[in-house]
Amino acid sequence: MTNPGFEPVDLWDLECKAREILDPGVYDFFAGGAGEELTLADNVAAWNRLRLRPRVLRDVSRIDTSTTMLGAPVVSPLAVAPMAFQRLADPDGELAAARGATAAGNVMVVATGATVRLEDVAAAVPHGQCWFQLYVLRDRDLTADIVRRAAAAGYHALVLTVDTPVVGVRRRDQRNRFRLPDQIIAENVTPMPVTQADKRRPSLDHDPNVTSKDIAWLVEVSGLPVVCKGVLSSDDARLCVAAGAAAVIVSNHGGRQLDTVLSSADALPGIVQAVGDTAEVYVDGGIRNGSSVLKALALGAQGVFVGRPIIWGLVTGGASGVQTVLDSLRQELATAMTLCGASSVKMLTPDLIAGTGPSIS
Amino acid sequence: MTNPGFEPVDLWDLECKAREILDPGVYDFFAGGAGEELTLADNVAAWNRLRLRPRVLRDVSRIDTSTTMLGAPVVSPLAVAPMAFQRLADPDGELAAARGATAAGNVMVVATGATVRLEDVAAAVPHGQCWFQLYVLRDRDLTADIVRRAAAAGYHALVLTVDTPVVGVRRRDQRNRFRLPDQIIAENVTPMPVTQADKRRPSLDHDPNVTSKDIAWLVEVSGLPVVCKGVLSSDDARLCVAAGAAAVIVSNHGGRQLDTVLSSADALPGIVQAVGDTAEVYVDGGIRNGSSVLKALALGAQGVFVGRPIIWGLVTGGASGVQTVLDSLRQELATAMTLCGASSVKMLTPDLIAGTGPSIS
Amino acid sequence: MTNPGFEPVDLWDLECKAREILDPGVYDFFAGGAGEELTLADNVAAWNRLRLRPRVLRDVSRIDTSTTMLGAPVVSPLAVAPMAFQRLADPDGELAAARGATAAGNVMVVATGATVRLEDVAAAVPHGQCWFQLYVLRDRDLTADIVRRAAAAGYHALVLTVDTPVVGVRRRDQRNRFRLPDQIIAENVTPMPVTQADKRRPSLDHDPNVTSKDIAWLVEVSGLPVVCKGVLSSDDARLCVAAGAAAVIVSNHGGRQLDTVLSSADALPGIVQAVGDTAEVYVDGGIRNGSSVLKALALGAQGVFVGRPIIWGLVTGGASGVQTVLDSLRQELATAMTLCGASSVKMLTPDLIAGTGPSIS
Amino acid sequence: MTNPGFEPVDLWDLECKAREILDPGVYDFFAGGAGEELTLADNVAAWNRLRLRPRVLRDVSRIDTSTTMLGAPVVSPLAVAPMAFQRLADPDGELAAARGATAAGNVMVVATGATVRLEDVAAAVPHGQCWFQLYVLRDRDLTADIVRRAAAAGYHALVLTVDTPVVGVRRRDQRNRFRLPDQIIAENVTPMPVTQADKRRPSLDHDPNVTSKDIAWLVEVSGLPVVCKGVLSSDDARLCVAAGAAAVIVSNHGGRQLDTVLSSADALPGIVQAVGDTAEVYVDGGIRNGSSVLKALALGAQGVFVGRPIIWGLVTGGASGVQTVLDSLRQELATAMTLCGASSVKMLTPDLIAGTGPSIS
Repeated sequence: MTNPGFEPVDLWDLECKAREILDPGVYDFFAGGAGEELTLADNVAAWNRLRLRPRVLRDVSRIDTSTTMLGAPVVSPLAVAPMAFQRLADPDGELAAARGATAAGNVMVVATGATVRLEDVAAAVPHGQCWFQLYVLRDRDLTADIVRRAAAAGYHALVLTVDTPVVGVRRRDQRNRFRLPDQIIAENVTPMPVTQADKRRPSLDHDPNVTSKDIAWLVEVSGLPVVCKGVLSSDDARLCVAAGAAAVIVSNHGGRQLDTVLSSADALPGIVQAVGDTAEVYVDGGIRNGSSVLKALALGAQGVFVGRPIIWGLVTGGASGVQTVLDSLRQELATAMTLCGASSVKMLTPDLIAGTGPSIS
Repeated sequence: MTNPGFEPVDLWDLECKAREILDPGVYDFFAGGAGEELTLADNVAAWNRLRLRPRVLRDVSRIDTSTTMLGAPVVSPLAVAPMAFQRLADPDGELAAARGATAAGNVMVVATGATVRLEDVAAAVPHGQCWFQLYVLRDRDLTADIVRRAAAAGYHALVLTVDTPVVGVRRRDQRNRFRLPDQIIAENVTPMPVTQADKRRPSLDHDPNVTSKDIAWLVEVSGLPVVCKGVLSSDDARLCVAAGAAAVIVSNHGGRQLDTVLSSADALPGIVQAVGDTAEVYVDGGIRNGSSVLKALALGAQGVFVGRPIIWGLVTGGASGVQTVLDSLRQELATAMTLCGASSVKMLTPDLIAGTGPSIS
Repeated sequence: MTNPGFEPVDLWDLECKAREILDPGVYDFFAGGAGEELTLADNVAAWNRLRLRPRVLRDVSRIDTSTTMLGAPVVSPLAVAPMAFQRLADPDGELAAARGATAAGNVMVVATGATVRLEDVAAAVPHGQCWFQLYVLRDRDLTADIVRRAAAAGYHALVLTVDTPVVGVRRRDQRNRFRLPDQIIAENVTPMPVTQADKRRPSLDHDPNVTSKDIAWLVEVSGLPVVCKGVLSSDDARLCVAAGAAAVIVSNHGGRQLDTVLSSADALPGIVQAVGDTAEVYVDGGIRNGSSVLKALALGAQGVFVGRPIIWGLVTGGASGVQTVLDSLRQELATAMTLCGASSVKMLTPDLIAGTGPSIS
Repeated sequence: MTNPGFEPVDLWDLECKAREILDPGVYDFFAGGAGEELTLADNVAAWNRLRLRPRVLRDVSRIDTSTTMLGAPVVSPLAVAPMAFQRLADPDGELAAARGATAAGNVMVVATGATVRLEDVAAAVPHGQCWFQLYVLRDRDLTADIVRRAAAAGYHALVLTVDTPVVGVRRRDQRNRFRLPDQIIAENVTPMPVTQADKRRPSLDHDPNVTSKDIAWLVEVSGLPVVCKGVLSSDDARLCVAAGAAAVIVSNHGGRQLDTVLSSADALPGIVQAVGDTAEVYVDGGIRNGSSVLKALALGAQGVFVGRPIIWGLVTGGASGVQTVLDSLRQELATAMTLCGASSVKMLTPDLIAGTGPSIS
C-alpha cells in the first residue's frame, strides 16, 4: 500500500490521497463529525485564528523537540490519538500504527475498539510507549478484565474516554448506512456498536454512568496512571485530577460527539490555568501542521494528540506512513520553533500568541 | 402523502423533501421571511454561534426530557408554534398537526388563521394540550367571540401575538404574487389578508392598537392564562408580566415581520434575566436540531417552539410526520443532554454555554 | 422610458432594471466607488449589521413619518442627495428629479454639476424644497456668482461639499475610459472634470483650499443656511457648527472618494453626540430600505439622504420613478416604525438598536 | 519587455499582467507564502480592515509626500524591499530595480541574494539611495567581507534580516519542485539555497545563531547604520535598538516564513509605541495601494517598504515599470492625504484611524 511516487507537501494532500484509496463510506466514517460538522471545522479553524508573534535574534542552531509525557521521554510532544477499527485503514491496523509511532519516537494509544488484540500490539513494539484507551462498559467485570490485560501487557497508561456515554450521531454514517465489514472485529471486546442505529451487538454499549469515582477504581485495578480524555470544562478537569487522574486531554472527540461544542484550541487555556501543576494537560483536535502544535504547547499543553492524519498515513503508507506523518509534524514543529526563536519546548510560552485574528479562508 | 422510502437524517433533509412536494409559491410562503431575510438566516446562525461546554463524568443513564409548560406536564419542552393555513401543507391541516403533537406529548398552538375550526381541532385531541393563538382584530366583538369559543372548546391557554400590528413585507410572496387558493379558508374568522398587498378582505385586519391593557382584558374574557408572543425587549417582557401575562415567547415571528431585528437566541438571555421567576419564558426561531433546543433551555427558556419544521413534517408525513419531527428533536435533545452530562432539563444551566464563536458555514 | 409592466419589490430590483437600460459606462459611473469599493459595500453592510430591538404593545394605528429639515416641514425625513449629471439618467435630468422629490414631499438637492440650469429647476417646482449643493471652485468670483444665483432663485439652503478637494479615483471609470457625452453639460458652470484623469477642462477644478472660514463667507454671500456635507469626524462636525453651519451631513460621498473610510452608519453616533442640539445632523450612504432609514433616525439623524436609488428611479421612470423610490422608502419606514412600536419619528430612539451583529450574506 | 498598450488601473492589474508573462513556477516563487498562506492574505486584509476617519476643511492645495529615511531626504516614504533573484523578473534584475527606485526618488534595498554584483548596482545609480540587505551566514569571514564591500561601494545602510534563521517552507515551491535556472546566480555570495529542500549548495546557509550582539558587530564592521528587518514583537524591537539598530522594519517577510504569524499592520502600533523616538520604525507586507501607505504612516511608520509589486513592475516594464509602481503609489498616497486633510506626512496621525472594521470581500 506504499505509494513511492506520491509526495504530499502537507497533511491535506495526504488526506486527498487517502480519500482516493478508501471506500467512500470508510473515508466518511473516519473524516466525518457529529451534526452539521461545525465543530469539526472549527477545530481546525480555531488553531489558525490564533496569531503567532515570533521572537527573533535567539540562538536556534539546535532545536530540541523532545519532552516527556507522564515522565517518559518522547522525541516530540506528538502522540497517536486513540481511534478504533484501524484495520479499516490498513491490513495490519493497530500493529502498523504502533510500529510507526514507535519508530517516530512517540506515544501510541491503542483503543478499546482496536482490531488487533492489545497483547499483540504491545508485543510488536516492545520498546514502544503504548497507552490503552478505555471505554467503561456496562459489564464492569469485562471492563476490569480488559484493564488488567492492558496492565499485564505492559501498557504504560490508561486513557479513560469521558465524553462518550453514548456514541455521537454522525450524519455521514447515517446517510451511508455505514456498517463495519464482517472481518473488522473489535478483538479486545465482543463487537461493539459503531453508530447509535447499530443494534447488532446490544450487549456491549458504553456505561452511561461513569463518574469520577471510577477514576480511582481504574487506578486501583490497573496500577497505571489514568489520563482522562474528553474534558472541555475547567471544573471537570479539576474534578478528574482530584479523583486521581495523572493527566487530562482537552478534546471534543474530533468533533464526533456533539456539534457546536467549543473547539479544543479555545478550551485549552482555561483548563491549563485550572489544572496548574497538579497534572499534565494534553490536547487533540484539528492539528494539521506544526504551527498548531507549537500553539498548543505555547498555551500550556504538555502533549498533542493527532487523530485523522494518522489514519491517512496508515492508508497511504502503513507503519511507514504513520511514521512519516509524525516525523513531518515534528519537522514542521522544529521549523516553527526555529522561526519563533525557541530552541526547546520549554521556551514555548503564552507570549508567543498575539491573540485571535479573523478567520481567513 | 406518506413517503415510506424516505429517511431524512436531519430537518434540512426534511425541508428539501417538502420543497420537492410543495407548489413553489406555497413553499416560499412558509419558508420565506421579511426583507432581505437576514434575520431569517440569523435565527439559525445565532444558535450555532453559541458554543457548548459540556460536562462529563455524570450519571446519564436515565435522561428525562420531561418538564411542564404553564403547569401542565409535557414529554419534552418542545411545542408546535402557531402557524396559519396548515391545509396548504396537508389536507387535514391543523387536525393532523394537533394529532402529531399530541402523539408526541407536546403542546400544539392553533392559530387564528387556522384552516380547521378550532372546536374541531380540540375535539380531535381530547387529551392533548392545545393552546390558541390570537390576533386581536379591529372588530373587538369578533375577537372576544373567538376567545370565548377557544375557552369553551377546552384550550388551555391564549397565545397573544404582539409583534404583528401589520403583517410584514415578504419579498418572495410579492414576487410570486402569492394568493391563498380559494379552498384554503381561515375557518375561525372571516378570511384575513395574507400579505400587505392583499386587499381582498379588508374588513379583517389586525388591530394596530393593542396595548398591555388588552392582556388583562383577555385574561378576563377567557379565564385562561395569556402568553405574549413576539417579545424581544426586556422592558416589554416586564410590561407583559406586569399586565398579567403568564409567559412570554421571545420571538421575531420567524424573521417574517421586520428584517434585521435581533435573533431570538441573542434576545433570550436578557429577557430571562428581566422576567426572573415572575413568568415562564419561551423562545422560537431557528430551531433545527437538539443542540439548539438544549442551548435555549440552558439560557433559561422553559419551552421551545418549533415552526417551519412542523410544516415540513406535515407535508412529508401528515400527523405522523409532525410526530416524527417532535420525536426526533426530543431524541436529539436527549442525546445532547447525555453528552452534556445533564440527566434532566433542570440541569441545563447557563454555564454549559461557553460563549459566542464565529459563524462557520 | 416608463416601464408599466415592471414591478420591483425592492430597490435592488430597481437597480437591476436600471442597469439593463443604461449604457454600461454610465451605469458604472453612477454605481461605482473609489478604489476596491470596500467602503461602497460597507455603507450598505453597516446598516444591516445594526440589529433592531423592536418595542411592542404600543398604539401604532396612526404612523406619522413627517418631520422638519432646517425648520421646513417634510412628509418624511428622506431627501434626494446631490448628484451631478442627471441627464445621463433621464432626458429631463434634474427637472425630473425635482418634480419627483416635490411630489413625494421631500427635499431635493440640486448639484453644482447639474445638467439643467439651477433657475429652471427651481422654477419647475415652485412649491418644492430645493437646496443647492456647492463645490467651492478655484474661481471664487464664479463661486460667489453661483451662490447668489441660487439664493435669488429661491433655494432654501446651501449644501457645501467638504470632502472633495479633489475627485476620488474610481477604477471603473478608468477601466471604461469614461467620458461625459458631448450633450451632457454642467449648465451652471463651465464644464468640470469627471475623473482625475480628465484633463479636458482644467480651468474649473475644485478649490483645494476650502476651510471653515468659507462657511461664514457662504452664509454671508448667500443669506442661506449652510449644510456641510462629507463629515466623518466629530471634531470636524463641531468645527463646522462653530463656523456657522446649520447642519452637517455624515457622508463618505457614497464611497466614491477614498476607499476604506468609515461607513456613514458607523460614523453617525459619534457625530450626533458631538453636535448635540447645536445643529441638525443628516446622513447618507448605503440606504436601500426602510429599516436602514429607521436606524439612522434612531441613532439621531434628523434627515436621511438617498443617492443612487434616485438615479435608478430616474432611469426607470423619470419624475414618477423618483417619486416611487421616495414613496416606497417612506412606506417601508412607516412599516418599520409600526413594527418597532413608534408612531412618530420622535419615538425613534437609540434603545431600538440592540447592537451590532455579524454580517450575513 | 515594455508593454506600451497596457494600462493597469491598480497593482492587482499589474500582478495579473506579470502572471501572464512569467513562467508559472517563477510567478509562484515570488507570489507565494509559507504554509497555507493565511498570513500572506492577512497582510493585505489587515490594512483594509483599518477604517479611515478623514479630516476635511483643511488647506490641501499643496501636498508634500517627502520625508527622510535615516536622515536622507526621499520623495516619498516608499522604498523597495529587499528581494533576491530579481533577474528572474527582468534581464537586468537589480540594476533595473535600482534605476527605477532612484528615478522615483526612493530607497532601493539590494539583497544578499541579488543576481547582480552589489558594486555594479551601486555604480548604476551614483546618486541613488541604496541600502544593502544582509543575511548573516555561517561563514562569518565571508559575511564580514560582503559587509565591507557594501560599505566600500557606497551603500548607505545595512538591513539585517532577523527573521530567517532558516528559510520558510513554501508549499508552492515544493509542489512546483522549483529550482533556480542555472543562469540565475547569487553573484555576491556563492549560491545559496532557495528552499529548505534545496541541498545543492549546503555550504552557504544562514547562521541560525544570530543574536543582538551581531548588531553591534555589524555597526562596527560596516560603519553604517543597521536596520533590523523582521521584527513583530515589542521586546525584540527594544532589544534591537538597545543593541545599536538605527531602525527596525516591522515585517513577517511577506508571509513567506511562518504561517499564521501576526500581520504587519496589526504588529505595527505596538512596536511604534515600544520604540518611541529611539529609532525609526518601518513596515512592509501587504501594501497594495496608497490608503494602506497612509495608514502605515498614520500609525507611526517612518517608511513603507514595497515588495512583490516591485517585481510585477520589473516584469512588465523593467526599470520604468518599477518607477511607475513607486510613482503611482506616491500619487495614490498624495490623493489619500488630500482626502484626509493632511498636506504633509507629519500630519498623518493615529486619530485618522477610526478602528478595525469587518473584512469585506
